[in-house]
Amino acid sequence: MLDNTGKKIKHQTKKQLRKVTRLFKNKPKNIGLAPGSLVYVGDKEKQPVTITLFSYKDEQFAEQKISQTDELFNYKESDTINWINIDGVHNIEILERFGKNFNIHPLTLEDILNTNQRPKVDEYPNYLYIVLRMFFLDERDKLLKNEQVSLILTKNYLITFLESPGDVFDPVRERIKKSNTLMRKSGTDYLAYALIDAIVDSYFHILEKLGEEVETLEDNIVLNPAKNDIQSIHLLRREMLLLRRAIWPLREVISSLQRNENEFFDQKIRVYLRDVYDHTIQVIDTIESYRDMIVGMLDTYLSSTSNKLNEVMKVLTVISTMFIPLTFISGVFGMNFKNFPELEFGWMYPWGFWAFTIFIIIGMTLFFKYKKWF
Amino acid sequence: MLDNTGKKIKHQTKKQLRKVTRLFKNKPKNIGLAPGSLVYVGDKEKQPVTITLFSYKDEQFAEQKISQTDELFNYKESDTINWINIDGVHNIEILERFGKNFNIHPLTLEDILNTNQRPKVDEYPNYLYIVLRMFFLDERDKLLKNEQVSLILTKNYLITFLESPGDVFDPVRERIKKSNTLMRKSGTDYLAYALIDAIVDSYFHILEKLGEEVETLEDNIVLNPAKNDIQSIHLLRREMLLLRRAIWPLREVISSLQRNENEFFDQKIRVYLRDVYDHTIQVIDTIESYRDMIVGMLDTYLSSTSNKLNEVMKVLTVISTMFIPLTFISGVFGMNFKNFPELEFGWMYPWGFWAFTIFIIIGMTLFFKYKKWF
Amino acid sequence: MLDNTGKKIKHQTKKQLRKVTRLFKNKPKNIGLAPGSLVYVGDKEKQPVTITLFSYKDEQFAEQKISQTDELFNYKESDTINWINIDGVHNIEILERFGKNFNIHPLTLEDILNTNQRPKVDEYPNYLYIVLRMFFLDERDKLLKNEQVSLILTKNYLITFLESPGDVFDPVRERIKKSNTLMRKSGTDYLAYALIDAIVDSYFHILEKLGEEVETLEDNIVLNPAKNDIQSIHLLRREMLLLRRAIWPLREVISSLQRNENEFFDQKIRVYLRDVYDHTIQVIDTIESYRDMIVGMLDTYLSSTSNKLNEVMKVLTVISTMFIPLTFISGVFGMNFKNFPELEFGWMYPWGFWAFTIFIIIGMTLFFKYKKWF
Amino acid sequence: MLDNTGKKIKHQTKKQLRKVTRLFKNKPKNIGLAPGSLVYVGDKEKQPVTITLFSYKDEQFAEQKISQTDELFNYKESDTINWINIDGVHNIEILERFGKNFNIHPLTLEDILNTNQRPKVDEYPNYLYIVLRMFFLDERDKLLKNEQVSLILTKNYLITFLESPGDVFDPVRERIKKSNTLMRKSGTDYLAYALIDAIVDSYFHILEKLGEEVETLEDNIVLNPAKNDIQSIHLLRREMLLLRRAIWPLREVISSLQRNENEFFDQKIRVYLRDVYDHTIQVIDTIESYRDMIVGMLDTYLSSTSNKLNEVMKVLTVISTMFIPLTFISGVFGMNFKNFPELEFGWMYPWGFWAFTIFIIIGMTLFFKYKKWF
Amino acid sequence: MLDNTGKKIKHQTKKQLRKVTRLFKNKPKNIGLAPGSLVYVGDKEKQPVTITLFSYKDEQFAEQKISQTDELFNYKESDTINWINIDGVHNIEILERFGKNFNIHPLTLEDILNTNQRPKVDEYPNYLYIVLRMFFLDERDKLLKNEQVSLILTKNYLITFLESPGDVFDPVRERIKKSNTLMRKSGTDYLAYALIDAIVDSYFHILEKLGEEVETLEDNIVLNPAKNDIQSIHLLRREMLLLRRAIWPLREVISSLQRNENEFFDQKIRVYLRDVYDHTIQVIDTIESYRDMIVGMLDTYLSSTSNKLNEVMKVLTVISTMFIPLTFISGVFGMNFKNFPELEFGWMYPWGFWAFTIFIIIGMTLFFKYKKWF
Repeated sequence: MLDNTGKKIKHQTKKQLRKVTRLFKNKPKNIGLAPGSLVYVGDKEKQPVTITLFSYKDEQFAEQKISQTDELFNYKESDTINWINIDGVHNIEILERFGKNFNIHPLTLEDILNTNQRPKVDEYPNYLYIVLRMFFLDERDKLLKNEQVSLILTKNYLITFLESPGDVFDPVRERIKKSNTLMRKSGTDYLAYALIDAIVDSYFHILEKLGEEVETLEDNIVLNPAKNDIQSIHLLRREMLLLRRAIWPLREVISSLQRNENEFFDQKIRVYLRDVYDHTIQVIDTIESYRDMIVGMLDTYLSSTSNKLNEVMKVLTVISTMFIPLTFISGVFGMNFKNFPELEFGWMYPWGFWAFTIFIIIGMTLFFKYKKWF
Repeated sequence: MLDNTGKKIKHQTKKQLRKVTRLFKNKPKNIGLAPGSLVYVGDKEKQPVTITLFSYKDEQFAEQKISQTDELFNYKESDTINWINIDGVHNIEILERFGKNFNIHPLTLEDILNTNQRPKVDEYPNYLYIVLRMFFLDERDKLLKNEQVSLILTKNYLITFLESPGDVFDPVRERIKKSNTLMRKSGTDYLAYALIDAIVDSYFHILEKLGEEVETLEDNIVLNPAKNDIQSIHLLRREMLLLRRAIWPLREVISSLQRNENEFFDQKIRVYLRDVYDHTIQVIDTIESYRDMIVGMLDTYLSSTSNKLNEVMKVLTVISTMFIPLTFISGVFGMNFKNFPELEFGWMYPWGFWAFTIFIIIGMTLFFKYKKWF
Repeated sequence: MLDNTGKKIKHQTKKQLRKVTRLFKNKPKNIGLAPGSLVYVGDKEKQPVTITLFSYKDEQFAEQKISQTDELFNYKESDTINWINIDGVHNIEILERFGKNFNIHPLTLEDILNTNQRPKVDEYPNYLYIVLRMFFLDERDKLLKNEQVSLILTKNYLITFLESPGDVFDPVRERIKKSNTLMRKSGTDYLAYALIDAIVDSYFHILEKLGEEVETLEDNIVLNPAKNDIQSIHLLRREMLLLRRAIWPLREVISSLQRNENEFFDQKIRVYLRDVYDHTIQVIDTIESYRDMIVGMLDTYLSSTSNKLNEVMKVLTVISTMFIPLTFISGVFGMNFKNFPELEFGWMYPWGFWAFTIFIIIGMTLFFKYKKWF
Repeated sequence: MLDNTGKKIKHQTKKQLRKVTRLFKNKPKNIGLAPGSLVYVGDKEKQPVTITLFSYKDEQFAEQKISQTDELFNYKESDTINWINIDGVHNIEILERFGKNFNIHPLTLEDILNTNQRPKVDEYPNYLYIVLRMFFLDERDKLLKNEQVSLILTKNYLITFLESPGDVFDPVRERIKKSNTLMRKSGTDYLAYALIDAIVDSYFHILEKLGEEVETLEDNIVLNPAKNDIQSIHLLRREMLLLRRAIWPLREVISSLQRNENEFFDQKIRVYLRDVYDHTIQVIDTIESYRDMIVGMLDTYLSSTSNKLNEVMKVLTVISTMFIPLTFISGVFGMNFKNFPELEFGWMYPWGFWAFTIFIIIGMTLFFKYKKWF
Repeated sequence: MLDNTGKKIKHQTKKQLRKVTRLFKNKPKNIGLAPGSLVYVGDKEKQPVTITLFSYKDEQFAEQKISQTDELFNYKESDTINWINIDGVHNIEILERFGKNFNIHPLTLEDILNTNQRPKVDEYPNYLYIVLRMFFLDERDKLLKNEQVSLILTKNYLITFLESPGDVFDPVRERIKKSNTLMRKSGTDYLAYALIDAIVDSYFHILEKLGEEVETLEDNIVLNPAKNDIQSIHLLRREMLLLRRAIWPLREVISSLQRNENEFFDQKIRVYLRDVYDHTIQVIDTIESYRDMIVGMLDTYLSSTSNKLNEVMKVLTVISTMFIPLTFISGVFGMNFKNFPELEFGWMYPWGFWAFTIFIIIGMTLFFKYKKWF
C-alpha cells in the first residue's frame, strides 16, 4: 500500500518533470537550410488554419471568416483599417502566399514558423515585425503553456499569426465592434497597442493564479511538508523562469517602440505605449517577488526537514537514555554470583530496585525538561 | 496540550503567511478594457471621499473642507497656490469630474485608480504626474501596509490623491499655516518637494521600527531559537523586499525630476531635490544593510539548529557508550553455564564486577572530557 | 563485489573528471616568443592537412581537392567567389605560405595556430578575421568537444581553417552546388554568413542532446539518487559553462559585424546577421535555463540525501524505542531476588508480561502513527 | 557551572549584538520639519565645542584656539590660507552663526548636524561641501566607530566639522607648521586634498587591525571552533559592510572632484586626487578580499560542525555495533530452558563464549579499520 | 599517535593559513606623510640593487651592468633605444637620483616604492607610468607570490623597476640580442609591449600549474576526502582571488593604452596591444572557470561528508535493529517465572528460539535489501 503510493508519487513526479523539461526544449531547425526556408517546428496535429478579417473605419465595420486567401489581398489597398488574424501557422502554403502578396521578407516568414522566438521587434522598410508570447494555464494538467504571437504592422493593415485558435483578444474585438470609440477613429498603431496591452494584461491573470499556487504550497510546507513538495517548488521556479524569459525582453521591445522614430507608430500613441511599459515593469517586479518567495520556501522546507530530524533524534535519545541505565540495573540483579548478599535482603526488591528505578526516571525527566527537549 | 500549542502556532503562522502573501498580490485590471477605463481595484469598504483645499500666497491663507466638487474648479484660475487633497479614490464619478475640469489624461486617471503603481513620474503637456508609495505599520497586526500617493502638479495647483484618510503630511500643513515662511513665498513646486520630503522622512520612522523588530528577533535566535523564528525571518525579509521595491524606483524618480528640464520645477528647487535624493539613497542603504542582517540571522538559525542536534547526539552517545559495555558485563555474569568458576569466587562480585564497572565509568568520562564533549 | 563496484565507480568518476578538467586546460604558448611566432599548441597526432576549393559565381561552379598550395594562389585575382577550406592547422609551412601569398598579418597566423581563442572579430586593412568555436559530442565517451574555426574574409575569397576534418558545413556545400540560388548570386559576405549560421544552428543540436542528458539525470535523481550523480551534475555544469564561455562572446562578435561600417559586409546582408544574432541570444537563453535546472538538481539531490537520513533514523528510532522498554521488563523478571513475589503468581507470565508487552507495542505504534513516522 | 558559563556567553553575545545593531541604526530627523531646520541627531553628552584656526601662507604661520566665533569672521577676507577646525557639531547656535557669516546654505548646515550622511560632494555657487566618514577602533570594546567629517571649501578658507575631539589630521598639522613645503605654497585645495588623503590612509590602519582579527578568528575556527564563533563572524561581516558602505561612495566623490570642472580644485591638484583615488580603490579591493575570507570562514565553521557530528556518530556506532551482538550472546546463555545442552559442556564457557566474543571484537575492529572510521 | 598526527595537521594548516592571510595583508604607508614621501613598505632584507642597461638600434647593441647611476644619465639624450632595468626598489637614494635626472613626478616614485599598487596606467606630460604585477610559484612552500613591476616609458628610454632579481623577461632579452628583428627596428613602445606580453604569457604558466593542483585536489575529494581538504580548497580559492584582483584591472590598462591618443604608443603597435588584450581576456576566462570548479569541489566535499554520515548511520541502524529484538527474545526466556511452561518443552530451545532468531535475521536482511541499504 505504502509502496504503491510511493510508486504513484514517483510516477506523477516523473510525468510532471517531463512536462517541465519540455517547457525548455528547443525545437531546432534543420542545420544549414537556406535562410528563409519555411519549416514548421511545432506539433503537427493541429486544427485547420482559420483566417478572420476585421475591417473598420469610423462608422464602417465588417467581420468576415475567410476561406480563400485571395479574397484578402483585395483589402490591401483599401482605405479601411484591416486586421487579419490567422490561427495556425503550420500551413506553409498559405504563409508563402501571404509572403508574396504582402511583400514579407523570407526571414520574417521563417520566424513566424519557428515558434520559439524571444519577444523582439524587427523593422523592415515596408512593415514592422513584432513577436510576443501569450501565456495560458492548461486546465487539465495545470501547467503553464505558451504560444508565439507574431504581428505584422503596416500603415493600413495588421496581420497577426497565432499558433492555435483561442486567444486573449476578445475584449479588443468587442471594442472594435462598438462605434464611435477611440479605436474606430485611430489607425493600425492603436490596434497594435490594444493587442499588446491585452497580452500584458493577461500576464496579471496568470500571475494571480500562480500566486495562489505559491500560497497553497507555502501553507503545505509550513504545516506539513511532504517529500514531493521539493518537486512542486522546482516546478513553480521553472514556470517563473519561463515567464521571466518571455517577459524580460518584452520590456526592451516596448521601450524601443516608444523611443524609436519609426513611421508606424504615431506620436500620439507613444503615451499609451509608456503605459504598457509601466505594466510590463510591474509584471517583472511581481515575478521577481515570487521568485524570492520560492527561494524562501526552499529554505523553509530544508529547515523543517532538519527540525524533523532533530525531533526524531530527541525521542530516540530520551527513550534510550532513560532505559539503558535501568536495563543495566536489572541485569545486575540477574547475575548468578554465589556471593551476592543484596539478593537475600527482603526489602531490596521493592525499595532498592523499584525506588531506584523511579528515581532515575524522575531525574531524567527533569534533566530533559531543563534541556527543553519536551 | 502540546498538540494544542502546536496547532495554535500553526494557525498563527498560517495567518501571518496569508497576510504576507497578500502584500505581493496583484489586483489585475480587467483584460482588454479600453485604456483609460476607470475601474477601482482596491478594497471597496472605504469611508466616504473627503476633499480639503489649502489656498495660500504670501499673507493669504484659507483652509476648506469641500463637499461639492464644483466649488473647487473656481480656484483653477486663481493666482494663489492651491493644494487639493482627496482622501479616497474609489468614487469614480468624482474622479471623472476632476479629469474633465482639470484636463487630466484618461491614462493618468486610470493610474490613480489602479493603486498598484510603482513610483514613477509621467510628464504631460499641462501637468506632471508623480506616483509615490506611503508606508505605515498597522498597529493591530504589526504588519507593514502601504498606500499609493498620486500628485498632479501644475503651475498654480497641486492635487494629491490618497487611498484613505490619514497621512504623513501634518507637519507640512503646519508649515503652510505659519506666515512669512519659505513655503508661503514659494510655488507649487516647493509644496510638492515638501510632500515628497515628508514621505521619504517617514521611511526613516518605518525603518527604525523594523530595525527594532530585527534586533528583538536576532536576540531570540541567538539566545533561544524557536521553530517559528524561521517564519519571522521570512516575514521580515519580505517586508524589506516590499520596501525596497517601492523605494528603489523612487531614486530614479527624484533623480529625473532634478535633472530634466521640465517647466514645473524651478531651478532654485533643484538643490532641495538633491537633498531628498541623498535621503533616498540613505534609506536604500539602510534597507540593504537590514537585508544583509536578515541573511545573517538565517545562517545563525541554521547553525544553532545543527548545534542542537550535535548536543542531542552527544548526550545519547555518552549514555549509550557508558552503559552498553556494562550491560554486557552484567549479562555475562547472568549466564547459566554449569562450568562457570568465576561465579563461585567470593570476591568476584564486589571486586571483579563493581570495581570493573567503576573503572569503565571513570575511563569513559576521561575519554569524553578529552574529546571535549562535556 | 560491493567493493569492486565501488572501485569501478571511483575509476570511472576519475576518468570522467580528467576529461572535464582537460576541457578547461590552457595550452600555453611559450613565454616571450616574438609576436607572430608560429607554434602549434594542439595535439600533434593529426591527419594530414587537406585543402578543398569551392569556386562559383552565378552559373559557374567548380570543386577541387588541392594538393599543391600554389594552385590556389592563382585564384586570388579571379572574379569568382572562392571558398578555400583547410582541415588541419598543424602544418606550419603551409600556413606560412598562405600568410605570404594572401598577405595575412603574423598575429592572425598566430591566432589560427593557437587554437584556444575566444570568438572575436579583428579588422585588418585588407581582410576581416573571425574566430568561432564549433562544438560536437564525441560518440565514444559522450563528452563535449570543441574546435576553433577561423575565417578570413576578403571581397572575393573566404578562407576557413579547421583543426581537423569533419564539420557542420555540409548543408552549405549543398546549397552552393545548386544553381540559381541566393548563394550563387551573392558574394563572400553571404557565404560567411551562411557558415556562421550553420555553426549557430549546430548549437541547437548540441543543446538538444545535452537537454536529454539533463532530463535523464533529473529522473535518476528524483527516483533513485546514486552516489556518483553529483559527479554527473558537475560534468553537465561544466559542459554548460564551456558552451557559455564560447557562445557569450559570439553575441558581441555578430553584433559588431552588424553594426560596424566595414566594407566586407554589404548592407543587404545585415538583415541576415540580425537573424543569426537572434538565434545566438536564443541559444544563450537556453543555456541559462539549463544552468538553472542543474542548480535545481543539486538542491534536489541534497534534499533527497537528507530525506534518506531521516528515513534511516526513523527506522532506528521506531525499533529501538519499541524494544528497549520491553527488554527492560524482561530483564526485571530475570532478576534473582529471593523476595520476588510477582514471579510466584501463576497469571503473571501470560497476563502481567505478555499483555503488558502487547500494550506497549500497540501504544508505541499509535504514537508513531500520530507523529506520521510510518 | 556549565550553565553559568553558558549564560555569560549569552550575555556577552547579546551585548555584542546590541552594539552591532546600533552600527546600522538610523537616527531619523523629525518628519516634515522645514528643510534646513537644525536638529542635532547624535548623542547629546558631548564635550564643549572647540574651535582652532590655522592661518598660513609661505612664511606666515599662526595657530589659535578660538573662544569667540566673532574673531574668526575677520579672517574671511584675509589673503592667508585659513583652516578652521570645529570639534563638536551639537551647538546649533555656533553653527547658525557660521552659516550666516560664511553664507552657508541651510541644507548644508542641516547635513553637518545630521551625522549619518554618506560620503558626497555638493557644489554650491560660493563653496564646495564634502562629507567623509572617519573610522577608528574603540580601545575599550574593540568595536568599529565612525564619525562624520564635513569640509567646506572656498578659495581662501577651509572649514572642517568633526563630531568630537580627536582625529587623524595630526601629521597634516605637522606639515603646515614646517615652512618652505608644498603645503605652505599651495592653496586650500591642496589642504583639502591632504585631509582627504589622511582619512583614506587611516583606513589602511583600520584594515590592518581588522585583518589581525580575521586571522585570529580563522585560527580559532580551524583549530577549535566554539559555539559563539558564528557571532564573531557576523560581527566582522558587519564591520566590513559598514566600512564598505562608507568607502564605496567615497570613490565616486573623489572621482567627481578629479573630473569636474569646478573652480575650487586647481588643475595641478588633480594628479594628487588621482593618487587618492587609486588608494581608495585599493582599500575597496582589500575590503572585498576580507569579505570573501569571512564567507570562507563560515563554510569552514559549518563543515567543521558537521565533521564533529560525524565523529560523534562514529564513536556511538563503533561501541554499539561491537557490544550489541555480544550482549545478545550473553543473553542467549542466560536463558532458563530445561533442555539446553550447550550449558552442560565444560569447554563451552571459555571456548564457546569468550573465544567467540574475542573473535567478534577483532572482526569488528578490522571492519571499522577497513571503513577508515578510526 | 592519532593525536600527534592531528596536531601536525593542525600545525600545518595554521602555517598554511598564515601565509594565505599574508597574501592579502596591506602594508600601510604612514598616515599623513606629505605626498611623494619616499618610504619603502616591503621586506627589508633584500639583495643589493642591480641595474642593467640594454642600448640598441638597428645594428647597434650594447648590454651593461651599471654600478654608478651617473653613467646612465648620459644615455638620456642618445638616439638609441635604452632599456634600464632596476632589480630592487628599497634603495631610496638611487630612486631619488633617478627621479631628479629623468624628471619623474614624486607621486610616481612613491608608487614605485609602495609595492601594493593595482595595475594601472598614469599619463604624465613627459612619460607614461605603467604598473603591472608579476606572479610566480615559490618552489619551497608551493605558494603563489607576486611582485610589482613598474614601467616608465618615454620616446627613447624605458625604465623598469622590479622588487627583486629574477623575472620573466629573458626571452625578450634574447630577441633584443638578435639583429635584424622587428624589435631592433621598433621603438620603446614595441619593447614595452614585448614586456607586457611576456608577463601576460607567464600567467598561462601559473594557471597551468594551479590547474594541476585543482585537478589533484579534485581527485582526492572524490576518491577519499580528508578533513583538511577544505583548507586546500580555501587556499586555492584565495590564490584565484589574488590572481583575479591583479589581472582584472590589467584588462582596463591595456584597453586604455590601445584606445587613448597618447603619443608614446605608435598606431602600428595598437594591433599588438589588441592581441595582448585578447590574451588577458583569455586568462580572466580561465580564472573564472577555475573559480567555478572550486565552488563545485566545495559542494562535492560537503555532499561526500553527508554521504559518509548516511553510511555510518546505516551500519548502526542495521546492526541495532537486527539484534535489539533478538536480545529481547533471549531476555524473555531468561525470566524466572515459576509458571513458564515454554521453558519445559524440549523442542522449544532449538526450534522456538533459534529458528525464530534465524527467521528474524533473514527477514531484516530482506527488508534492508529492499530499502537498498546494503
